[in-house]
Amino acid sequence: MRFFSDNAAAVSQPVLDALAAANSVDTAYDEDAQSQKLDAAFSEIFETEVTALWVSTGTAANALALAALCPPHGAIICHAEAHIQNDECGAPEFYTHGAKLLLGTGEGAKLTPDEVERIAGSIRDDVHQMQPHALSITQASEYGMVYTMDEVAALGDLCRARGWGLHMDGARFANAVAHLDCAPAEVTWRAGVDMLSFGCVKNGGMSAEAIIQFGDARGKAAEIRYRRKRGGHLLSKGRYLAAQILAMLENDLWLDNARAANAGAKLIADAAPDRLVYPAEANEVFIRLSAEEAASLRAKGFDFYDWGVGEARFVTSWDQGADEVRPLAEAIAAL
Amino acid sequence: MRFFSDNAAAVSQPVLDALAAANSVDTAYDEDAQSQKLDAAFSEIFETEVTALWVSTGTAANALALAALCPPHGAIICHAEAHIQNDECGAPEFYTHGAKLLLGTGEGAKLTPDEVERIAGSIRDDVHQMQPHALSITQASEYGMVYTMDEVAALGDLCRARGWGLHMDGARFANAVAHLDCAPAEVTWRAGVDMLSFGCVKNGGMSAEAIIQFGDARGKAAEIRYRRKRGGHLLSKGRYLAAQILAMLENDLWLDNARAANAGAKLIADAAPDRLVYPAEANEVFIRLSAEEAASLRAKGFDFYDWGVGEARFVTSWDQGADEVRPLAEAIAAL
Amino acid sequence: MRFFSDNAAAVSQPVLDALAAANSVDTAYDEDAQSQKLDAAFSEIFETEVTALWVSTGTAANALALAALCPPHGAIICHAEAHIQNDECGAPEFYTHGAKLLLGTGEGAKLTPDEVERIAGSIRDDVHQMQPHALSITQASEYGMVYTMDEVAALGDLCRARGWGLHMDGARFANAVAHLDCAPAEVTWRAGVDMLSFGCVKNGGMSAEAIIQFGDARGKAAEIRYRRKRGGHLLSKGRYLAAQILAMLENDLWLDNARAANAGAKLIADAAPDRLVYPAEANEVFIRLSAEEAASLRAKGFDFYDWGVGEARFVTSWDQGADEVRPLAEAIAAL
Amino acid sequence: MRFFSDNAAAVSQPVLDALAAANSVDTAYDEDAQSQKLDAAFSEIFETEVTALWVSTGTAANALALAALCPPHGAIICHAEAHIQNDECGAPEFYTHGAKLLLGTGEGAKLTPDEVERIAGSIRDDVHQMQPHALSITQASEYGMVYTMDEVAALGDLCRARGWGLHMDGARFANAVAHLDCAPAEVTWRAGVDMLSFGCVKNGGMSAEAIIQFGDARGKAAEIRYRRKRGGHLLSKGRYLAAQILAMLENDLWLDNARAANAGAKLIADAAPDRLVYPAEANEVFIRLSAEEAASLRAKGFDFYDWGVGEARFVTSWDQGADEVRPLAEAIAAL
Repeated sequence: MRFFSDNAAAVSQPVLDALAAANSVDTAYDEDAQSQKLDAAFSEIFETEVTALWVSTGTAANALALAALCPPHGAIICHAEAHIQNDECGAPEFYTHGAKLLLGTGEGAKLTPDEVERIAGSIRDDVHQMQPHALSITQASEYGMVYTMDEVAALGDLCRARGWGLHMDGARFANAVAHLDCAPAEVTWRAGVDMLSFGCVKNGGMSAEAIIQFGDARGKAAEIRYRRKRGGHLLSKGRYLAAQILAMLENDLWLDNARAANAGAKLIADAAPDRLVYPAEANEVFIRLSAEEAASLRAKGFDFYDWGVGEARFVTSWDQGADEVRPLAEAIAAL
Repeated sequence: MRFFSDNAAAVSQPVLDALAAANSVDTAYDEDAQSQKLDAAFSEIFETEVTALWVSTGTAANALALAALCPPHGAIICHAEAHIQNDECGAPEFYTHGAKLLLGTGEGAKLTPDEVERIAGSIRDDVHQMQPHALSITQASEYGMVYTMDEVAALGDLCRARGWGLHMDGARFANAVAHLDCAPAEVTWRAGVDMLSFGCVKNGGMSAEAIIQFGDARGKAAEIRYRRKRGGHLLSKGRYLAAQILAMLENDLWLDNARAANAGAKLIADAAPDRLVYPAEANEVFIRLSAEEAASLRAKGFDFYDWGVGEARFVTSWDQGADEVRPLAEAIAAL
Repeated sequence: MRFFSDNAAAVSQPVLDALAAANSVDTAYDEDAQSQKLDAAFSEIFETEVTALWVSTGTAANALALAALCPPHGAIICHAEAHIQNDECGAPEFYTHGAKLLLGTGEGAKLTPDEVERIAGSIRDDVHQMQPHALSITQASEYGMVYTMDEVAALGDLCRARGWGLHMDGARFANAVAHLDCAPAEVTWRAGVDMLSFGCVKNGGMSAEAIIQFGDARGKAAEIRYRRKRGGHLLSKGRYLAAQILAMLENDLWLDNARAANAGAKLIADAAPDRLVYPAEANEVFIRLSAEEAASLRAKGFDFYDWGVGEARFVTSWDQGADEVRPLAEAIAAL
Repeated sequence: MRFFSDNAAAVSQPVLDALAAANSVDTAYDEDAQSQKLDAAFSEIFETEVTALWVSTGTAANALALAALCPPHGAIICHAEAHIQNDECGAPEFYTHGAKLLLGTGEGAKLTPDEVERIAGSIRDDVHQMQPHALSITQASEYGMVYTMDEVAALGDLCRARGWGLHMDGARFANAVAHLDCAPAEVTWRAGVDMLSFGCVKNGGMSAEAIIQFGDARGKAAEIRYRRKRGGHLLSKGRYLAAQILAMLENDLWLDNARAANAGAKLIADAAPDRLVYPAEANEVFIRLSAEEAASLRAKGFDFYDWGVGEARFVTSWDQGADEVRPLAEAIAAL
């Protein structure tokens, strides 16, 4: 039984069906009927006019958004555990042409305004140092924690005051919204977010994510289109990406899938409240586990990652129902 | 009826079926069972050990291959009509970090050894000029012409003599092989090609191409893997790309599709031999057409691109049988 | 006797004297008293408020200016014989992060509005092609010809109409102004030039050039300062660069030196009016010369470059008086 | 009295004299007689065959060396207080095309093998993370401390074992050698250093530093020449840089100047042994100083930087004799 990554999960049937349904002749790149629907579909979900561009990976979404927010000689503040720092092989540096990531710390891979101010304060305002131009936060965080609306808004205020862009890496944005049970607008543009990497792949998609531009950042969409093409990310049959995304949005499939994944995580967390390293707010559970305990779980067929020494990470997916997760929860409880 | 681009065509049913068949849990990125089969599948087709990496677009395939063959301060020789020069918004410059394309001329977007030598000879061997490190040719060319085995080999000899890498943009490689009716090896590694962008998308695929490394260039595969990740091109559910490619290779679907597309082009070309700007060797036909003639064809429902003044381009696709193409051929013949 | 490059010339004595005079303790980088005088000194010469930044080379000046005018996914139009295309090893591509140079032709390495419009017209306005953002012209040109005020103004109008930046590579700007005998303002900002690489080194300087920003382009100065530092071009003892430039400007040394160099070229040109490939407007003379004639001149001790087949280039320098040039002129006349 | 930076110091008279002496016609770029002497001059000092390239700034020297040692997708380990991280506005990222700096900690801005191993151990050996390719250390460090021969050798062993390049930022290399009183070879190539940025400017030069390649790294010299030109760092009158460097090496001026600067620092340090934050091994002294004490020193005319809260940095220069430094030492002792 697989709990090592939501990337290993299958693709939701409606997404596959949408690919089949899209399988007819249409114009190339993103001029097709499906791609042309993206802006409207996301504008409805976010209750404001947005622009939305598909790409194949969350790494591309993050890097393209950051490149539009930060010049080559600028800096981007993020958490030391951020995906953009640790898991993208320098895609942000590549797409920004060499901007620097300034790393902060904070519980559960979340940043606070105080920490962000501390980092900003450590940079001299002179030409010898790369000046911050953007803040990037991950929602839900790399440790499965969720920024509340107020927490995002506080960071948004800080960014506006300093003239920075605010980027949200939403590889698990659906899981965060499902946890908060709020309007997507509340934790994005209303809280000051300029660009969002809206994740689908971990949540039942196959190969499509979206870069959402809110408010003034919509003015960057034209530039991002050039950067996307230049990055080799303008698929000639882009309609099959658009179709995936539209299928995810249709009937709130994105939220249903996220709720299912979150429920699995809760089942595990509830079985081991004393072992939790962080509250399990999304679809990831980090628990304390000795080497022997880990071995005994693996002997029972559970597949997961060790996380540092004495800890382990379990990721639940949209397609894992209670029947599949309960045996793990029980095995942990029985340790 | 659409004749403006093979990018507008649908996806081959076996490719769609392969996506559905791949729809189960597996490891992420390219560690899954399907991705692991790629090297062997291509090695069989090319009758030698190759390495093969999937990416989502031909632009990414070309740019990643070129970045592995040319340093930032180097130059790449290509035809002035090459896709890498005209249609990739500078992806080669982006991935190589600023290498320069040196442009040649030649009938039908094909380069000859003489022309390549002329370009090379125009570069002073000093630090003030970017020195050529690679040659990139397109097979079939942007004007639907095909390099013969001898023609590729002559360029391959030149590259070896000068210590350059030889890259082949094979967005329509299948069409070229179908035309030549030769072993794929004959126009690639046996003729000196180091890296091939093996196209699927124009030929019935959805969102998968392959970068093939031959011979010594296989030593570059590790570096390309880092560059691919860094470019945001390592899909987390890469198995769905591998599945597409394997489906294209299975039972020679790639060649069958290419033959079908080529047959359509031949039908058109045979209907207007006196109008041909170039011989129609692959699936593109360029013919002389007055503005009035073009208008009359469009009035009949045929969709195609003007190409400069007094010329037009018709592209046939894998899914267009004689029944669909014949009306166009007849309409042209009747002009 | 050396006529192969004005780079080989010595440094003007007032420049050397200025270095000695500057040899005391002062603040580092460009906060010192001398660097602080640059804006005012150039503003006086150009009869308008300008910002001026020193760098060590003309290549750095050009590349930094172009990087401020063109994004990585944009294009810069220039002549095929431009220094930025042929003699800077891709510095523009490096500093712009991969912008493309679009090459034009034109008598004497000069571009006309018609030619520039032709190039612009060859670029489709879509995301697949790099869109022009700037025009770069060389004054005096690589073939020693000078754009008149009207010629610059016509190109300036074109740039304004299209929203492009206009950069002038003025490695031999002094020679051009000396030839035109006009106010420097007339061929720069009044004619629509946004940024000028103001050359000193070929004209008696040692290691200092200036990037001048006019009008709205002054708003780019802050960004260029970061790019300059990032390029390793912010010297810690920058006052010795500023001192060189101030010495060049003092008492019109820059114009006196240029006039002297131009006079040498005129002496040569007047000796061989029938051999001239281009009118000798600045300090370069291109003449037709057979291999035997070239050999005979070299046998007499004259040092110069062959320029293609049957032509030769002679460059005169600020420190070559009539006594030094006349023997060459007479030798050519006697051929 | 100025103690805030050795960059503010004047230029040594022999360097100025060398500029005047070099002021005659010679070939351009680095083909001139003076530039051609550099390899031999440095080979003698380092007792082995080296290649040496001049550049104008230490930032350029560092960035060019690192670009030759680390690919765009690689990482460079350095101290969190390193000049390349904090004071070069991302020049390493620019010249490497986006490599990442991995930051360590350590007393006095020095790295230990344990710390370097700790950082290396934190990087997973997979394609999602940028792999270390080089280590960069600063000799003397940013806090005026000096790596002993054994310390460098231990880091050199580590680099060789891991296949990394070892770069030494020697902006104050002369001060370090003067302190150690060792052969320059002992703390460079014999200890495993591949490339050295040999500083002159802080030590009495005007605008010239050297990049030294040792051993196998000499094979990178050709590539660095292209990168140098591309970076706009190939001065057309390069002979005036070579002349500066040769003047610094002549009669051990570089060591004499460094000894003088070190002696000044010792004078200060000896006056306040209980206040020292770090041992004053080179020409920088960091002492604990209250705000009131700092103010009282400034009131007496001493100019220096605060360094964090409650500390201050004093930098002595080659041209400050005991007469100039003693008043400061006495003032500190009297606090």
